[in-house]
Amino acid sequence: DGTVTVSVGGKLHADARVVDGDAASPFLVRRARAGVEVEVAERFRATFEPGFGEGDAELLAGWVEADLAGGLRLRAGKFKSPFGLESLRSSTDLRFAERALATALSPRRDVGVMAHVEAPRLEAALGLFNGVPDGASEDREPSDAKDVVARVLASPVEGVSVGLALATGAERGTSEVPALADYETSADHAFLAFRPGVVADGARQRVGPQATLARGRLQADAEWTWARHRVRGPDGPADLEHEAWQVAASVVLSGTPRGRKRPLPSRPAPDGGIGAVEVSARVHGFAADPATAPLATAGSARRALAWALAAHWTPIVPVRLGATVERTTFDGFEGEADPRAETALFVRAAFEL
Amino acid sequence: DGTVTVSVGGKLHADARVVDGDAASPFLVRRARAGVEVEVAERFRATFEPGFGEGDAELLAGWVEADLAGGLRLRAGKFKSPFGLESLRSSTDLRFAERALATALSPRRDVGVMAHVEAPRLEAALGLFNGVPDGASEDREPSDAKDVVARVLASPVEGVSVGLALATGAERGTSEVPALADYETSADHAFLAFRPGVVADGARQRVGPQATLARGRLQADAEWTWARHRVRGPDGPADLEHEAWQVAASVVLSGTPRGRKRPLPSRPAPDGGIGAVEVSARVHGFAADPATAPLATAGSARRALAWALAAHWTPIVPVRLGATVERTTFDGFEGEADPRAETALFVRAAFEL
Amino acid sequence: DGTVTVSVGGKLHADARVVDGDAASPFLVRRARAGVEVEVAERFRATFEPGFGEGDAELLAGWVEADLAGGLRLRAGKFKSPFGLESLRSSTDLRFAERALATALSPRRDVGVMAHVEAPRLEAALGLFNGVPDGASEDREPSDAKDVVARVLASPVEGVSVGLALATGAERGTSEVPALADYETSADHAFLAFRPGVVADGARQRVGPQATLARGRLQADAEWTWARHRVRGPDGPADLEHEAWQVAASVVLSGTPRGRKRPLPSRPAPDGGIGAVEVSARVHGFAADPATAPLATAGSARRALAWALAAHWTPIVPVRLGATVERTTFDGFEGEADPRAETALFVRAAFEL
Repeated sequence: DGTVTVSVGGKLHADARVVDGDAASPFLVRRARAGVEVEVAERFRATFEPGFGEGDAELLAGWVEADLAGGLRLRAGKFKSPFGLESLRSSTDLRFAERALATALSPRRDVGVMAHVEAPRLEAALGLFNGVPDGASEDREPSDAKDVVARVLASPVEGVSVGLALATGAERGTSEVPALADYETSADHAFLAFRPGVVADGARQRVGPQATLARGRLQADAEWTWARHRVRGPDGPADLEHEAWQVAASVVLSGTPRGRKRPLPSRPAPDGGIGAVEVSARVHGFAADPATAPLATAGSARRALAWALAAHWTPIVPVRLGATVERTTFDGFEGEADPRAETALFVRAAFEL
Repeated sequence: DGTVTVSVGGKLHADARVVDGDAASPFLVRRARAGVEVEVAERFRATFEPGFGEGDAELLAGWVEADLAGGLRLRAGKFKSPFGLESLRSSTDLRFAERALATALSPRRDVGVMAHVEAPRLEAALGLFNGVPDGASEDREPSDAKDVVARVLASPVEGVSVGLALATGAERGTSEVPALADYETSADHAFLAFRPGVVADGARQRVGPQATLARGRLQADAEWTWARHRVRGPDGPADLEHEAWQVAASVVLSGTPRGRKRPLPSRPAPDGGIGAVEVSARVHGFAADPATAPLATAGSARRALAWALAAHWTPIVPVRLGATVERTTFDGFEGEADPRAETALFVRAAFEL
Repeated sequence: DGTVTVSVGGKLHADARVVDGDAASPFLVRRARAGVEVEVAERFRATFEPGFGEGDAELLAGWVEADLAGGLRLRAGKFKSPFGLESLRSSTDLRFAERALATALSPRRDVGVMAHVEAPRLEAALGLFNGVPDGASEDREPSDAKDVVARVLASPVEGVSVGLALATGAERGTSEVPALADYETSADHAFLAFRPGVVADGARQRVGPQATLARGRLQADAEWTWARHRVRGPDGPADLEHEAWQVAASVVLSGTPRGRKRPLPSRPAPDGGIGAVEVSARVHGFAADPATAPLATAGSARRALAWALAAHWTPIVPVRLGATVERTTFDGFEGEADPRAETALFVRAAFEL
């Protein structure tokens, strides 16, 4: 029958950040979002998620979905492009303040249509999207090319998942809208940016193998992303191949592990428990194509390598407090000095309902 | 007594568009809106409707209302200007992907005060507004002039409604804010645009006779809009008279007709029914004042004529799937070539609660 | 235990304004806001308040809070800086259409962390914020300096409150983001603005003594704000000391007085009562440092002095109708003519749930 189920949620992430050599705006409302999900007849769904953060209002997700035969679902609207492992994870479940550098090469939130399957041992998705630059979320794109994005994540053995994401499309920028992304650290420092006048100018491919391991109190993730872009600079076109990766592991010291989701308290703090405590470590990196050198702004880095340590405490279900320390070092392009390393401390109070 | 009733709703329109010769951004979240209506003591009402769409967040409606004697209601805030027949119709009830060209000359959402009556056989409204350019919605306007807008729609015979809308006011633009609208096709192609430096400069009148016919499975609508603007270009002031019109008809093949509102399924698809199916056709046109020629950008059209065919399917109450094909042809200004015709296909998945 | 309480509210303020010599945009949706407050285990709280008004969407409040020992609360995110008496009052409780000139020197909504206590006879708060210019609300600030803000309001005798607010920090602007505010009348007219190129350039202090008196049907408020800024103009740095103040009193003619909160009807109008009626009067002023003269735009005022009369009617709890008349006169800087006085009428229909 036509039973209508409405669920309402929201999240608030309030941050304090200290970054060596640049402590502008130490306090930040990183995310303030509401979300409504509606399901009709257990078969039609719609999601509406507006959000505010860092001074902007935007539609994070707005899609409608219908169940077809055999568990296949067809979705249309704005939602996360089915590509990056960490990109697809809910922000409140992240083990660090910000996503790793592998996400900087992944498409994020895009507008399109997608057929997908969500089964206990298999996630598969195939979609057609407007296409977005590396690490970007967009509502409209300037050019006429579409992107095909596909992803499979299978769990052959309980607790082990292995997957592959592929994306292929094209993008053509203009001098006003270059359709090329800068690459940034967790503290929003652009370590690689393109000179004015360099624009996207053709084919774009991305490949992203990924794996996760959930064993008892341990959760480990690994992903590697490779992206090739045709760009055009003052000296003509160039095909740039960048890559980025991360390896991360978390251990739940107290509380109930839930794999990729954040652990929850076995006994909440107000009831005399100590809540859920988790510690995490990761290494991640980014390597630009050496041919990027003449197209990049002065002071840009050819490579970034970062490590981070983090601890999170969930005293009671909707609350999560976290601290992350991250250090990123850089190599300059050939003949250039290495950009200065960055050390950052992130403290976050999160609330999710 | 002071009984408080709160009703909450929302709508999501996810589109795919193919336009010949320009397929930029084929996927689009056309509308993502939430709405709250509050009524107190069956006499005071307030509505709050924020929306997201095409990358922007805006307040679509925000008004307060009180019932005076004799069914008269007094409203203040932002709401739809009581003018165009199709402009006043809810977007989920539209029979085509986008409103017809008659709406391009109508005021849309404006800020002001309005006294109005909503009776079974009579709708009447008289309002004072900031005033907006043709087809536009605004929160503030730059100039000091107000617009008076009035509309009556009467139903002398069951199923037949005849009405007239009138608007008079003034607008004065500046080179930064010309306060003049471009005129666009359903696919957002501006077929008539003003040269830089041409600005609104005085009186503005609009007249809009309109009629609807609802007979069994048939719903037909007709409206004609005439607008006169005083504008100022490099050669001095000019009074431009534009007109636009539409004639549209829909037939409900399956389901329960509801007149101007979309038909609903007699038996929803999940219960073995086929839901509500409706097919529609329309012709609409726009004719600019020939004196617009020296003020319009190169390639602008003097006339646009469009026809569209559409089919909509409502498998279950909150869902509506539609496809619209529309072809628009153009006449150039005297001595100019005719702009190229446009053919567009719109597919929409809509969800409204 | 982990009981979750969710409360939802909202407010709509629809205005009509007539200002002599400038009646642009007479109608205005001044505020359209929704708000969600969540409390978990009577100890953790989160608030999310997005708003729309005057064409912008923004996050007004987004914070998370935890109760520590002894009634002390720790809050992080975006919220009102604990400074000005009228600044901290809810907009629907205001006795006039807009806040007085004392608020023009106070920080408004800022991002940071705050420890605070709310007891019947004592409010105390100490916070660390990004810092905002005079009268401003911001999500991010350009410079690296933080502001410390502290406030105590004590009620030694029932109905009498005396308080003091202090803020100290620094701000450094750039030619793009000067980080200096213009000072405006209630009708948004900037009576004192800085020349291009004048920027904030160092220490900033604010002091704000304040007092309220609630005695039977009378509510009176007084506050005085002093602010010192280091700024830099073409001739080098300068330390500017501005001050602003207000004295206001309201009398509840009908209904139940609630002190700083708006009075409510003893018997609502729909039940045959006359609702709550309140009349108010205030005097307020602003005096700029005479050394501002070479840094201010032509036509700026050195002093502003304003009086206002207002009447508010609450026929039923969620509704409030108000009218305010305000006249502001100005003194020019030495050797300059006095700017023209401004008279404004504000009519507001407010709805708050």
